Amino acid sequence: MPLITLLTDFGTADGYVGEMKGVLASRAPGVPLVDIAHDLPAQDVEAARLTLARYWRRFPEGTVHMVVVDPGVGTTRAPLAVASLGRLLVGPDNGVLSPALLMPGSCAVELPVPPSAAPTFHGRDVFAPAAAMLACGAAPEALGEPSNDPIVRRTAEPRRLPDGSIEGEVITIDRFGNCVTNLLAPRGGTVHSAGRDLGELRRTYADAARGSVVALIGSTGLVEIAVREGSAADELSLRRGDPVLLRPPVA
Amino acid sequence: MPLITLLTDFGTADGYVGEMKGVLASRAPGVPLVDIAHDLPAQDVEAARLTLARYWRRFPEGTVHMVVVDPGVGTTRAPLAVASLGRLLVGPDNGVLSPALLMPGSCAVELPVPPSAAPTFHGRDVFAPAAAMLACGAAPEALGEPSNDPIVRRTAEPRRLPDGSIEGEVITIDRFGNCVTNLLAPRGGTVHSAGRDLGELRRTYADAARGSVVALIGSTGLVEIAVREGSAADELSLRRGDPVLLRPPVA
Amino acid sequence: MPLITLLTDFGTADGYVGEMKGVLASRAPGVPLVDIAHDLPAQDVEAARLTLARYWRRFPEGTVHMVVVDPGVGTTRAPLAVASLGRLLVGPDNGVLSPALLMPGSCAVELPVPPSAAPTFHGRDVFAPAAAMLACGAAPEALGEPSNDPIVRRTAEPRRLPDGSIEGEVITIDRFGNCVTNLLAPRGGTVHSAGRDLGELRRTYADAARGSVVALIGSTGLVEIAVREGSAADELSLRRGDPVLLRPPVA
Repeated sequence: MPLITLLTDFGTADGYVGEMKGVLASRAPGVPLVDIAHDLPAQDVEAARLTLARYWRRFPEGTVHMVVVDPGVGTTRAPLAVASLGRLLVGPDNGVLSPALLMPGSCAVELPVPPSAAPTFHGRDVFAPAAAMLACGAAPEALGEPSNDPIVRRTAEPRRLPDGSIEGEVITIDRFGNCVTNLLAPRGGTVHSAGRDLGELRRTYADAARGSVVALIGSTGLVEIAVREGSAADELSLRRGDPVLLRPPVA
Repeated sequence: MPLITLLTDFGTADGYVGEMKGVLASRAPGVPLVDIAHDLPAQDVEAARLTLARYWRRFPEGTVHMVVVDPGVGTTRAPLAVASLGRLLVGPDNGVLSPALLMPGSCAVELPVPPSAAPTFHGRDVFAPAAAMLACGAAPEALGEPSNDPIVRRTAEPRRLPDGSIEGEVITIDRFGNCVTNLLAPRGGTVHSAGRDLGELRRTYADAARGSVVALIGSTGLVEIAVREGSAADELSLRRGDPVLLRPPVA
Repeated sequence: MPLITLLTDFGTADGYVGEMKGVLASRAPGVPLVDIAHDLPAQDVEAARLTLARYWRRFPEGTVHMVVVDPGVGTTRAPLAVASLGRLLVGPDNGVLSPALLMPGSCAVELPVPPSAAPTFHGRDVFAPAAAMLACGAAPEALGEPSNDPIVRRTAEPRRLPDGSIEGEVITIDRFGNCVTNLLAPRGGTVHSAGRDLGELRRTYADAARGSVVALIGSTGLVEIAVREGSAADELSLRRGDPVLLRPPVA
């Protein structure tokens, strides 16, 4: 039995998500609907891409993931269906589905837009019907023509500096004010950011004193800057894109 | 297999929605619960009515919709169950269920309030038990006496001005700052509001330049004022009830 | 068929809840997931405890409740699984599970932390796998060693003053600004707070004039201070912990 998950920037109060759920319940009866989030920052494709990256592979094969963050709705940007690692995804061709598109063996098709579709609401009129068909067993190839060159976004790569340290950046800031970077640190090291030496990488938030800044390896394996029971983003005035420096230990 | 959907202004953090879901899970075991929204503006019956109007008919027949926005809870206002177009609804008699009540052939009953019901929480003690019974197959008529004259709210009608233009108003503003009006424009036309000529009706948000105002026909068929990748409500300082003028094309 | 409910302070936008749901869907296929709330105040164990107290017993026996508000994640604080009144709960040993632990016959075990668990995300790597096992029929005792002395938090007890009145306090403030106290008032009485006489206990919000303060017995049986169609917390500048006085009626 598949599931359909939903990730949007629609909020819930206006009823747009309700409309999509009604379409899904009508066209894929009995398929459970699982909310991921509807409060993504409005039209922030990058935030949606990073959130999707966290969860899509945690769900079992056969799961259908709907991702509707779609500032170009109604334009020539294509609606896509993607098959990747046994999961199925639908969403606009604006890079939001990159985590699945980047996997070897993934394939993407362009979904046709029926003339009756509202040009401002493909979530209801294009993506939900396609998600329902996929959840009911349709193959993506049955839904459209192959997409030749879907847009792919990648997280910026850190760069190695002449002195051996590695410069990365903050890629996302979570609800707690934790600043997640693009840095891997398999051998540990010390972290500098916002003009401050943040010390050795630690294990968890509570390895720092209450209110103190701590750098650690977060739950996706990336270096993260946090404040125990506080907000690192506030404390260090960090924003997405700000540089973070890792000094690996001397070998 | 029916579904039960939930629309409230309770928020989720306090656990009131959790209590209702517990009652539903206990009394209608196995019936899926589908969240619509719990972050409606507090006690805003009009907002709830417009949100309900969007989604209730998108769900399949047999679906039970709970709507609990209820400033008069515990007073003489009746709790209602409504059958309309094959769907079932429960909610207070304050106009919030109007989209279903206005359909030909709808019928409404008054739900009895058991003496044990908390006067401040009919969502848990009256509406959830009734929704569970309906989801388990009870007919609405089995739940109470017919309601003679339930309160019905209607969206204001636009009016035709002597010069042939049509004056409507903003009826709701969504999360993106899009201003939805009560105007239909089957033949197109130009739109004026907030002292500005907003030009011809367009197809979708991206038909305007980034940051520019655009009038278009939204996903429910009503004229809508938007700003591409911005907020029309902010840009034009529009609020619910503000006038919007449509000049139909010369025939 | 059991359910798994989720209560966290993670928000939804970052995808942490999505990750947990993916683990649950993979390890307990077919078990419905029910959101309680993800917008609890960050790291507010006391708020989570009071919210859990509202709903956990409303769900049927066999339900598995996940509660992840966990400022001490990754430290020596134990992860717990609890069986109480036929329900099962998982969450950190910080007092958040007290409503279940305080019941006669409850039992608690300490969940082992696998070496592969991210020290910052036991919700995904410890609590979700344990919840899935419980939902699939595992007994709590099969999951870990008995917990000797789990942390229990209790709501402060009101105290009787020499003049026969009872002094309690505001224990939580809900989305509407209603201030819930720790006072029981089976015989009624008058309420004083914030330097004001709030009059006799009433039945429901609408027993006061619009905008007026009203004291009443709320839906959990506790004295509550409200403003009809307004916020008592704002009107009276009340905060959690502020004193509230009940004068029982003269016998």
